[in-house]
Formats: sequence, structure tokens, C-alpha cells
Amino acid sequence: MTVPAFTRPTLAQLNACDDATFTACLGPVFEHAPWVAEQAARLRPFASVEALHGAMVGLVAALPEAARVALFAGHPDLAGPAARDGTMTAESTGEQSALGLDRLPDAEAQRWDALNAAYRARFGFPFILCARHYGRAAMLEVFEQRLAASREEELAMALGEIARITRYRIADRVADHGLPDLAGRLTTHVLDTSRGRPAEGMRLALHEVSGALPCGTTQPLVEAVTDAHGQTEPLLSGAPLRIGRYELRFHVGEYFRRTGAVDRGFGFLDVVPVVFCIDEPTGDYHVPLTVTPFAYAAYRGQ
Amino acid sequence: MTVPAFTRPTLAQLNACDDATFTACLGPVFEHAPWVAEQAARLRPFASVEALHGAMVGLVAALPEAARVALFAGHPDLAGPAARDGTMTAESTGEQSALGLDRLPDAEAQRWDALNAAYRARFGFPFILCARHYGRAAMLEVFEQRLAASREEELAMALGEIARITRYRIADRVADHGLPDLAGRLTTHVLDTSRGRPAEGMRLALHEVSGALPCGTTQPLVEAVTDAHGQTEPLLSGAPLRIGRYELRFHVGEYFRRTGAVDRGFGFLDVVPVVFCIDEPTGDYHVPLTVTPFAYAAYRGQ
Amino acid sequence: MTVPAFTRPTLAQLNACDDATFTACLGPVFEHAPWVAEQAARLRPFASVEALHGAMVGLVAALPEAARVALFAGHPDLAGPAARDGTMTAESTGEQSALGLDRLPDAEAQRWDALNAAYRARFGFPFILCARHYGRAAMLEVFEQRLAASREEELAMALGEIARITRYRIADRVADHGLPDLAGRLTTHVLDTSRGRPAEGMRLALHEVSGALPCGTTQPLVEAVTDAHGQTEPLLSGAPLRIGRYELRFHVGEYFRRTGAVDRGFGFLDVVPVVFCIDEPTGDYHVPLTVTPFAYAAYRGQ
Amino acid sequence: MTVPAFTRPTLAQLNACDDATFTACLGPVFEHAPWVAEQAARLRPFASVEALHGAMVGLVAALPEAARVALFAGHPDLAGPAARDGTMTAESTGEQSALGLDRLPDAEAQRWDALNAAYRARFGFPFILCARHYGRAAMLEVFEQRLAASREEELAMALGEIARITRYRIADRVADHGLPDLAGRLTTHVLDTSRGRPAEGMRLALHEVSGALPCGTTQPLVEAVTDAHGQTEPLLSGAPLRIGRYELRFHVGEYFRRTGAVDRGFGFLDVVPVVFCIDEPTGDYHVPLTVTPFAYAAYRGQ
Repeated sequence: MTVPAFTRPTLAQLNACDDATFTACLGPVFEHAPWVAEQAARLRPFASVEALHGAMVGLVAALPEAARVALFAGHPDLAGPAARDGTMTAESTGEQSALGLDRLPDAEAQRWDALNAAYRARFGFPFILCARHYGRAAMLEVFEQRLAASREEELAMALGEIARITRYRIADRVADHGLPDLAGRLTTHVLDTSRGRPAEGMRLALHEVSGALPCGTTQPLVEAVTDAHGQTEPLLSGAPLRIGRYELRFHVGEYFRRTGAVDRGFGFLDVVPVVFCIDEPTGDYHVPLTVTPFAYAAYRGQ
Repeated sequence: MTVPAFTRPTLAQLNACDDATFTACLGPVFEHAPWVAEQAARLRPFASVEALHGAMVGLVAALPEAARVALFAGHPDLAGPAARDGTMTAESTGEQSALGLDRLPDAEAQRWDALNAAYRARFGFPFILCARHYGRAAMLEVFEQRLAASREEELAMALGEIARITRYRIADRVADHGLPDLAGRLTTHVLDTSRGRPAEGMRLALHEVSGALPCGTTQPLVEAVTDAHGQTEPLLSGAPLRIGRYELRFHVGEYFRRTGAVDRGFGFLDVVPVVFCIDEPTGDYHVPLTVTPFAYAAYRGQ
Repeated sequence: MTVPAFTRPTLAQLNACDDATFTACLGPVFEHAPWVAEQAARLRPFASVEALHGAMVGLVAALPEAARVALFAGHPDLAGPAARDGTMTAESTGEQSALGLDRLPDAEAQRWDALNAAYRARFGFPFILCARHYGRAAMLEVFEQRLAASREEELAMALGEIARITRYRIADRVADHGLPDLAGRLTTHVLDTSRGRPAEGMRLALHEVSGALPCGTTQPLVEAVTDAHGQTEPLLSGAPLRIGRYELRFHVGEYFRRTGAVDRGFGFLDVVPVVFCIDEPTGDYHVPLTVTPFAYAAYRGQ
Repeated sequence: MTVPAFTRPTLAQLNACDDATFTACLGPVFEHAPWVAEQAARLRPFASVEALHGAMVGLVAALPEAARVALFAGHPDLAGPAARDGTMTAESTGEQSALGLDRLPDAEAQRWDALNAAYRARFGFPFILCARHYGRAAMLEVFEQRLAASREEELAMALGEIARITRYRIADRVADHGLPDLAGRLTTHVLDTSRGRPAEGMRLALHEVSGALPCGTTQPLVEAVTDAHGQTEPLLSGAPLRIGRYELRFHVGEYFRRTGAVDRGFGFLDVVPVVFCIDEPTGDYHVPLTVTPFAYAAYRGQ
């Protein structure tokens, strides 16, 4: 393709440019299916990027089943050979490597291979999932559940996931996309209810829990210290939240020893873990803690 | 010793028997120091086992320092060579093997050896601790703290620990000992505050947390299922509680899926961990949980 | 009636005595309808008082509608002229006077008169309610709601209330009645979560709230002080709980000033009111409070 | 006074104008003591209104005791004859009438008269209090407490209160005063923890509680309905909070009947009252509620 595309065009530029430029810009949005952009070019102008994305998804949804399945077949397996060999599209490479799917330990890679093979054998097309929405452990759980669905259901699910994947890809490509709900947020807030004040200076850490509970292993995502309002910068923000289990660890004992509420030595509470699930990638999760040296409450707040 | 002792005499029998029988019964109470029982025999009768124990501890406390230290020296190292070779008294063997101190992994054994050597070098007698009061991880933490104490403090601490050790040993030997506060208790109670009712049929498990938090490993102690009152049999009872960190895991997600409050799939709460410290071996710990699908509170209750 | 009845017979005596004695004993159970006892006498023996009561209610339920309505018509109005003139049966007199329905202020008496007249005009029989189950304010609320029901519903409701009324009356008359669920219970428990201990010595009071919230007036029912377990004797027990609104007032500020957690002067919390409704007369209500000087939680517990 | 003052000058104007204008502007700040402004005029320029106020208070503090007491004596009694006759300064009239001190019921007026007389008899000057900081009931409580203080303490207290009173009066008079902490704030937030969401559309009302608890009477201050975030506009803001007792009433039953969590009829919770004290007039009070149909928690948050 010799037409030099814009680096990151605006909607106005996309509406005004020639068809080849339009296709060069948006061709990679649907995996191995630049024809979707080609056909969408003829439906211009679009009043919004939402409308443009809707039209592109609509072109795929309108296909007869065989053609739709052919488009599905253009998607690489999650954690499959193409991921490991580095032969996927740039888009899929980015999405899968963020989760480490291109460099799995052998045992986990074999599990993915077995699941991918079972899915293809059952449904006749690869398992498709919006990788930005999942942690690795949650992805495997969902994969196993979906193997039990009907072909009808999976045809619909695959199209839905493609709609999600391509929405992010368009947002990456269009400067003024204006698409809402592309990111989630996780915040916390610690209140010292023995003093009726925000708990200032409390260390806390967010971990991702992988593997099934209660025996899961955890890996640290972010650490923070509460400010004078008992708050921290958002622990997660600016991107979709990955569906999965998380653990917030509040260093309560250390805090109360510093305020003098608890003597040195063992108190009743030391590190308070709060384990919870996120299942809305673009949700606003607020998980506050109210705490005394002997009691605490945690909840999903606003 | 050829005198046949009673299997487990009453206080009246101990007050009435001849000196040799008395000594045969209570000689092993003070480690490698049957003379304490011999001398106590001459102070009979005792109005209570509490008084008998007090008299025996008093005999040791009254010794000049050198003799007291000689008695301390009769105690085996915790997790030391005698524990591993099986050459301790029956009493010490029972107390140390309940914690696995006679069969430690090499790395942990080396840590104990180093601490024991450092303590003996600093204070001139072995480190003495009432093993029934501690979990292994807490024991190590306390050991390290006590290395920083003064000799004066440690002379007093050693005597105090011997008083604790021998109190349990006398209770083991006297049928009608009447000694209070030889055991602690841990109970829980789960209330479903979204329905204003006890949470019935919720699985839960108690784990011991070893190693420093937040990276500690845990091992299961007991599992239970709540009854119609949201309660279970005491999770720990009938013996002193071991000082240390514990984790109660409440299978909240499973419960709310069964009551229909949460659909299948990821809810907000799945397994709720409550991590707390026990530092009163004969305390009454009640750790209830009030819970909805999105919020919970845990506290040290009555 | 010249037959001398037992003071309070056992079931065995009731099964063995002659018909006239049986009727003398149980004749007053159904209001102005001794024939129910007369007919029940012929169905003896009864295996339990539950069976006896069931048979008596069954005899009424089996009546054709006109005869059932005639039996309903034998019941005095609640707070009606017979109540005020003292011309009701001994049973109704006791049930209505416990609520003060025989000595109402004029305005309230007029409201009852209007409701009674409206109910009779609409359904053709008096409004019947098990008075032991209601507070006065709740009784009026229910009365107004039931005026909107259909005649079919009210025929069934009246029979159900008569079954409740007569169950208590039989229990009053038979020594070994063995009937369960004749009483409810209200208890509380106060935990000081700033110290992880029961709140000992906290004053509290239970009030009945009459009139519509939030402008209701209250009258004191019972006062108590928490013991070392943070508990009190049951606040209500030994009789059915009266449906209605209640307020528990916990003297939290006074308690925390005494423990030294709060200086003299205004703290944040002083008297903590917990307002709740009871609608299960034979339920077990536990309403605990967990409290710090700046926070509290109240809930319906077990 | 014939000099036309600025309506509401800036600090720069106050620094630049002639002495007579300055005194005309700020003369009424200290009750019946325009000389304080006259003398302060000579200390110009002031870098800030804070510095100006500090200088004026300093002039009074530097007076010998007799002169200070003479200045105190220029203050009208709270709720005294001058208040009832309308013969106070404009400033005092505004401050006292906002509390209704100029139109008290006779019984309460007599109580004030007695307290005022007792205070004057004991200390030799009138009782002085920053009226903007108090509710009427709290003012009486404080009055009674202060009658027990020493003369030394009351000389200091009177000066402190005058500093508070005049700070507000200066802020009223200077356009760009820049004084912080002239107002407090009361906010709330309701979270439905049975659904893990803000409680939207819940009615609530703030009342002032006057008279001693628990028998106090209440009067409504403001009503509100929670928005989609479970919040409302600040319930109090823009002025100092009046020290005293308040009651927030949350219409919880109505809310849960609408969400379908509770059937019609009596639930467990209907109107939830939260009673608390405010004692920091310029504090930021956040009093959130977390609630299910059977449980709630309230606390002083951030």
C-alpha cells in the first residue's frame, strides 16, 4: 500500500480523504479484513466515530454465516503458535503481549493449545475475546465456560467480542474519536473510624490474583500511601480494567502503631486484605475501607 | 525410680502419699530438676494445685542466680540437636514435636541453630519459651526480639516462661487440678445483612499464616460450614491458642449464588479473607462477619 | 353454668372428662360460641392441644358462609362501645385493655368508631384482629389497609385472626398445652469496636413509637445497662411482640466519656437512636450495635 | 458621623483612605468601641486583612484589665433587655435575631435573664459569645458550664470570643478580605450496600435538635433527595455551622420499597435517624450512610 496515510487523522479528515487513504488508515481495524474499511469508505460521511464503528460492525453482521465464519477464521488463536512465533498482525501482537500470552510457561501454553483445539473442533472457528478486557486467569475461566455454549451462542459472542476489539482499535487510530467508556477506574479511601478522620499515611498495595481462589498466587500491580484525605491517586485508570480477581492490602497495623492507638508487638489487625472481583472493564470501582484497631468494613462504593 | 506412681493422682492423694511417690509423680514437671518436687513434698499439705505450683515456682525463684541459671541450663534448645536426635525428656518431646520443631526443613533448622547460639553466647543459658503458646513463625519473631533484651530482663523472662510451662505440666499430671485459664477459644458467626438473617451453610476455613505478611504462606487448620444460626463449633478450643497470625476464609460468593442474590459468574465478593493476630493464648476470640454481596465488616467481638 | 370446671386442666383431663366439663373449660375460647367446644367434645380424644385447636378451627371453617359471618358478628368492635362500657367477655376485655383500647382519648376513639362503621358497612361483619399481636398505632395502619381488601379476602383474614386469638386462649386454659411460638424476643448487644471489647455499663432504653414517623411520639418500655458481655436481659420476651415501630436509644456519649475515649463536652455521638419495625410477633429479634466514638453500625442479627 | 464611607472597601482602599473614612468603615467592628478602629488607622498599611484584624485584637488585649472590662461591658446581654427592646447595635441585632434571641418565649427569656444576672454578679462583665457559632440549646449549655469557671479564665474567654465575633464583622465589611475558615460544611452520601451502588432518589431531612437529648424537640432545617451518586448539595454551607445537636433522617423504607428489595408493609427499617453533634463551626462534616434493608452504618467521614 503506497498511499501515505495520516498518522492519526481526525474524523473530518477521514470523511474528506480519498477511499484509498481511508482504507489505509482503518484497514487494520478488522483483523485480516481490510475490505470492511473499503466498503465503509463508500458509506461516508459519518456523523461520529460511534456511527463509523457501528457501520463497520454492521457490514460484518450482515454477512451470510459462511462469510462471517471466514472473517472469524482470520483471527489468531489466543496464546497460539502465531503469538509465540511473532507472526500476528501488529494489533494482535500488542493486545496479546500485554498479557504475556506470547511467552507463557510451557504448562500453561499446553493448556491454551488444548482449549484452542477443542474450541475449533467444536465450533469451526477460533476462540475470539477482547484481550484488553481480561486478566489471564479470568480469560482461562471464561474460555472453559464458553466451550459449553451452543454454536448459535458462540457465533453471536464472537461478533460481540470483535465489536469490542475494533472499538478500541478505532479509538487508537482516530484523533478526535470522542468514544466514551474506553477506560475504567479503581479508587480507594481509608477512614479511621476510631478517630472520625481520614487515615493519612497508610501504605497499601494492589495485587492481581491469578489462579483459582483460595490458593491463588498474587502479583503486585501498584503501591500507594494515603494522603491527608485518606485517598490516593486512582490505583487503576486510563485503560479498561482487566476482568479478574484483585487484592487490596492495607497496612493497618503499621498505621495504628504510628498513631499510638496500638502498642508495638502483635495487635489484632496487621495487614488487612480485601479480595474482590472486577467484571466491568469500563466500570468505576471505589473500594473504601473504614477501620479501627479491632474492626473494619470494606464495600463497593460509588 | 522403682516407686510405682499413681497414674494421675488427685490433690488429696498427693497430699497424703509418701515423699518418694510425690516426687515420682511431679519430678518431671521441672525439666531435669526432680529436686524441686522433692523439696515441695516437705511443704505439704497444699490447699490447692495453684498453691502447689506457686510453691514449686517459688523454690526456683528463691535460688541464687548461679543455681537458677544451672536449672535454666537443663532445658533443651528449641528446635536444637536434642530435639532432632530424640534425646529430650518426654515432656519436652511432646511440646516441641507438636510444632514440628523436631523435623524442620534444613534452612529453618539452621536459623534456629544460629539464634540459639547467639542467645546462649549473649546470656549464658538457653532460650526458654512456653512452646504451647506459640505458632512457629511467631516463636521466631519473638526469639529475635528477645535477643535485644538485657540479661536482667531475660533472667526474669526465663523464670516466667518456666512458670507457664510447668503449670500445664502439673495440670497434665493431677486429676482434679482445678486450674483455670488453660485453654483459649476461637469462634465465628456469619450474618447475611442483605436479608437480616444468619448466613446458613456458608463454608469457611481457618488457616495459620506462617512467614511474615504480606507474603506469608498459609496452612489449613480446620474447615467448617455455618449452621442455621450462622455459627460453627468453636474453630479452636480445649488448648491454649498459639500466638501468631491466622486467616479465616469465608466462601461468600458460593453462598450468595446459592441464595440467588448473585448470578453465576464473577460477583464482587468471592472468598473473603479475614487476617488477624492472636496474642492471648487463653483468650476468648470471637471474629464475626456481617456480609452482603457487595460489602462486609469483620471485627473482634466478644 | 353449674358444672365446676378444672382450674387449668391437662390435655389428659380434657380427654377424659365428661362433655359438660369439657365445654365449661373451653367454651369461652371462641367468642360467644360455646357450641364450638360442645361439638369438639365429641371428637375426643385429641393427641395434642395443637390437634384440638385445629379441630375447633376446622369446625368454624366448615360452616356455610352465613353461619361463619354470624360467628364473626359475635366479636366486639376493637375500641368500640362494648370496650368502653365494660360489657365484653372477660377474654376480650383482657386483650383490649392491655392496649388501652377501653380508655382512648376522644379523638382516637372517634377514629376507631369511623373505621369500625366503615368496615361493617363494607363487609357486613366486625373487623377482627388478634390484639395481642399489635401495638395501637400499627393496628390502625393495618385497619386502614384492610378496608381496601375484597370481601373474599376479609372472610379469610377474619378466620385466620380468630385462629390466632383462640390459639392463645387455649394456651391460657390448658396446663400442658405444649404449643410452640407463643412468644417473641428482643435482645441487643453492644460492642465497642474501638477497643475490640463488649461495651460494659452502657445505658440503653427501649421505646415504642406511636403515630406515623418521622413525627411520632415515643413512650418508654424498658431501661437497661449492659453487662460485662455487652448484653442485657431480653428487652422483650415471654409474650408475643406487638407489631409496630420501636426505638432503641444507646447512651454512647456517656459511655465513651467514662472510658476516656472522649473528653467532656460535645463529642460526635451522644445518644444513638436505632428505629426499627417488628412485624413477626413470635420472631427472635436481635438488634446489636457496634460503635466507636465516631461511627456505628446497627443491624437485625440472629 | 458625616464622612461617607465606602460601601464595602477593598484592603487597598482601606490602606489608602484618610483616618476618618477608615474609622467610619471599621468603627462598628468592636461593639461600642470605635476607638479600636481609630488607633488601628495609625498602624497602616496592613499586608492582609488577617494582619489588620490581628492588630485590632492586639490593641484590646494590650489594655489594662479595667479598660478591657470596660470594653467587655459595652456588649449587650445575649437575649437580654436590649435585644428585646431593639436597642442594640445593628451588628448585634443581626447576630442575635438570627437565633431568635430577640423574641424568646417567656420561660426561656427568664432563664437567660437569670443566667445573665448570675454571670455579671460573679465576673463583673456580661457573658460574651460569638453567636454565629451556636445553636440556642448549645448556647445555654455552654453558658451554664462557663458560670463555673474562674474570673481569669473568663477574662481570656471573653477576649477570644470578641476575636471571633470581630473576625466575621470585618469579613462582612471588606470586599477582598481573603480570610479563610469563615464557614463550615455538612454533607452526606448514601450507599446501598445490598446492591453495591449509590442509593439514588432517597429522601432525607436535616433537623436541629433543641433541648436535652433524649427528649429533645427537633425542627427541620433542610430536605433533599439523593442524586445518581447518592449525594446531595451540601446540607449546610456558606456560613459557620452552629454548635449543637442535629438529626439526619434517611427515608430508607420508602427507598427499598421502590427498588423492590422490600415488599410493601412494615419492613425492618423505615426512617433511619442519625443524631450527632457539631462542635467545630468551621469544620467539614461528612456523615455518610451505608445501608441494606436490615443493616446500616453511619460515621463521621472526611
